[in-house]
Amino acid sequence: MTTDSITSWLPFLDRLADAAGEVILPHFRSAMTVENKEAAAFDPVTVADRAAEEAIRTLIGEAYPEHGILGEEYGDTSDGADSVWVIDPIDGTRAFISGLPVWGTLIGLMRGGRPAIGMMAQPFTGERFVGDGQSAFYAGPGGPRALKTRACGALDQATLFCTTPALFAADDRAAFDRVERAVRLSRYGVDCYAYCMVAAGQVDLVIEDQLKIFDIMPLIPVIEGAGGAVTSWTGGSAVEGGKVVASGDPRVHEAALKMLANS
Amino acid sequence: MTTDSITSWLPFLDRLADAAGEVILPHFRSAMTVENKEAAAFDPVTVADRAAEEAIRTLIGEAYPEHGILGEEYGDTSDGADSVWVIDPIDGTRAFISGLPVWGTLIGLMRGGRPAIGMMAQPFTGERFVGDGQSAFYAGPGGPRALKTRACGALDQATLFCTTPALFAADDRAAFDRVERAVRLSRYGVDCYAYCMVAAGQVDLVIEDQLKIFDIMPLIPVIEGAGGAVTSWTGGSAVEGGKVVASGDPRVHEAALKMLANS
Repeated sequence: MTTDSITSWLPFLDRLADAAGEVILPHFRSAMTVENKEAAAFDPVTVADRAAEEAIRTLIGEAYPEHGILGEEYGDTSDGADSVWVIDPIDGTRAFISGLPVWGTLIGLMRGGRPAIGMMAQPFTGERFVGDGQSAFYAGPGGPRALKTRACGALDQATLFCTTPALFAADDRAAFDRVERAVRLSRYGVDCYAYCMVAAGQVDLVIEDQLKIFDIMPLIPVIEGAGGAVTSWTGGSAVEGGKVVASGDPRVHEAALKMLANS
Repeated sequence: MTTDSITSWLPFLDRLADAAGEVILPHFRSAMTVENKEAAAFDPVTVADRAAEEAIRTLIGEAYPEHGILGEEYGDTSDGADSVWVIDPIDGTRAFISGLPVWGTLIGLMRGGRPAIGMMAQPFTGERFVGDGQSAFYAGPGGPRALKTRACGALDQATLFCTTPALFAADDRAAFDRVERAVRLSRYGVDCYAYCMVAAGQVDLVIEDQLKIFDIMPLIPVIEGAGGAVTSWTGGSAVEGGKVVASGDPRVHEAALKMLANS
């Protein structure tokens, strides 16, 4: 039986993140080409995004040719493999093109359809958040340390993050608004960074919609490893994305799910 | 006549920012005391905020005892002085308590009631943005360089930032919403960082309300030095705060003011 742990995977994850950071950073805060993936929506994809996924795919292909890869840019080449890497080279492209250091490179490994290992790497600040579902660690400015969610007994003590409530359909927006009115503080706009702050015990709750597997799978082992939970709005699996709730304390999680269900 | 330039002031500004960063950073992402300044509103003030202003005030008092100081934490001790320092030790306290590196230490110098020099320092990332109204510079990861706003011909090509539209009264919210619908991309939540991204040519427009002099004065020499503009919603001075528009291109500035005036 395979044991997937931070210890066993960290050197390889670091190699992947190093390779991605090297090709992404020269494009951060420089004049660059922004392409539109879909004509209808403003979904910027940069040259950096594609080059980083290529770099990661090359390293995985060399080291683990039998593994599958599901990348945000180049799609699904997993072909039924049991071990599948899930990659979003630049999660938070809007932050990226706005010059804000709250985007990140997401790298996750699934085994038999379940999240095993995940990392968020922020090359501009030099931060890395990594987890294996059992434990989670931070490396970067301020020094390495274990990640641990914080206790939060009720919604009225909670800090809530959401990339943007504009993502929600009308009914869901009403549900989200109820939770937002119940919390102590709500903030918008930081994509993967918000989930890492849940793992770090700085934030209590993230509620989002329209996530793709790339946006959330790599973050699940980090949050769960830090003692938190990630589920769908109905309490099911969040691996595939869609409507997601992440939290650091089960009491807040339960309260949020209850309020979101009253649609 | 005094000539205030980045060159003449940078060593002292760096000393102030160093001193502030030293006392603030140990509190960032650590368990800390959060006080409520006003019982009604959630306005977190940390121990770090106060200690940093004390450190800055001490250095200014030693070097320029005749200068006045207007600080976010300890109020106005300027007493009619011609040279007045304007200080916000942690602009973006909500980002700070959420663990996000998009807060900053703001330090500005007014001469005869007009902005002369300003700096935003982000000690976690090691970034500094400084300006004297004629020019502006960046130092930090990626290396030092001149700051220059980017060209943006019209609102439909613009990226707009706003800390939170919840700050606006109903009529103003309607005016803001009009601008938001007209722009290409809008994002929330980054306080002083958004203004620095205007100066860096990454963002085109910031629209806010309820700013205090501490929140905006130190940023004016940076944005103007980079070729941008900062005014009130009616095109007047923004030094005192209130309703503020900052932009990198006069065409976008004019278009935003026109749309905000149609209340």
